[in-house]
Amino acid sequence: MSGDQIEILLVEDDSDDLELTMHSLSEERVGNRIFVARDGEEALDFLFCRGAHGGRDPDCRPKLILLDLKLPKVDGLEVLKQLKSDPRTKALPVVVLTSSKQEQDLVRSYQSGVNSYIQKPVDFDQFRAVIKRLGFYWLLVNEPPPQMAFHGGTQDAIRTRG
Amino acid sequence: MSGDQIEILLVEDDSDDLELTMHSLSEERVGNRIFVARDGEEALDFLFCRGAHGGRDPDCRPKLILLDLKLPKVDGLEVLKQLKSDPRTKALPVVVLTSSKQEQDLVRSYQSGVNSYIQKPVDFDQFRAVIKRLGFYWLLVNEPPPQMAFHGGTQDAIRTRG
Repeated sequence: MSGDQIEILLVEDDSDDLELTMHSLSEERVGNRIFVARDGEEALDFLFCRGAHGGRDPDCRPKLILLDLKLPKVDGLEVLKQLKSDPRTKALPVVVLTSSKQEQDLVRSYQSGVNSYIQKPVDFDQFRAVIKRLGFYWLLVNEPPPQMAFHGGTQDAIRTRG
Repeated sequence: MSGDQIEILLVEDDSDDLELTMHSLSEERVGNRIFVARDGEEALDFLFCRGAHGGRDPDCRPKLILLDLKLPKVDGLEVLKQLKSDPRTKALPVVVLTSSKQEQDLVRSYQSGVNSYIQKPVDFDQFRAVIKRLGFYWLLVNEPPPQMAFHGGTQDAIRTRG
């Protein structure tokens, strides 16, 4: 699949969670166009169109990033911070999806600007239900950021015009 | 109702939209504890515990703010900017719920750090369905920010300990 068509960037290294998430999203018939990054570095390379993703069109962005926290190479919190501090990616909706029950992960995620934080349910059926809810909400209810939201300085330009 | 018990701060000046939103939330049996602010100034007074809300406990926060954009006194975008630029309120989940179809409202909201943006459906049944989805998602699926997320400097304190 071309990176330019994807709706969800799923950043997950655990094979079981990955399979269950993909399966649940496909059941809900939302988010059939998913790109999977298995570590934080690949997620950043994908979003910033560099490394192996150097040829990707930077104006084609996912509507949703589902981000695990415990990741190889670059951890999820660092990915989140980089995305939310860069005008090219700040507006991208990021939902942390983690098995972490540590309050400090929740605190750091919100302080870094996460859009939403979900704790993976341990129970199989509950996990599926949660994935379906979030997929439906972010792909069919939420209005994703338009192209203009990703250009640095746009806010001032609009303010002047408005 | 005491402001200390509320789950949703609903900032809405349109009586019809207000009634429909309240009704839809109560149907889903989520968010029965709602405080309504009819303009942006009252919303800010409520959240920063000042003016008529000066006696409120600042550590008691809603799990969700539903924010209209076109508001009397202080408009929704200004409310959003003030909330997202203040460490006492930055972590609060804010969902813009608006009838605006202007791209610049979407752009400005995302650039100001909105958690999610929803365009009010014109159709009555679709409006109800959207409110139920968002109420369920933000009150029962999303993990709200804990107390610690609202204290300035906490991030550095945690980083040092971690």
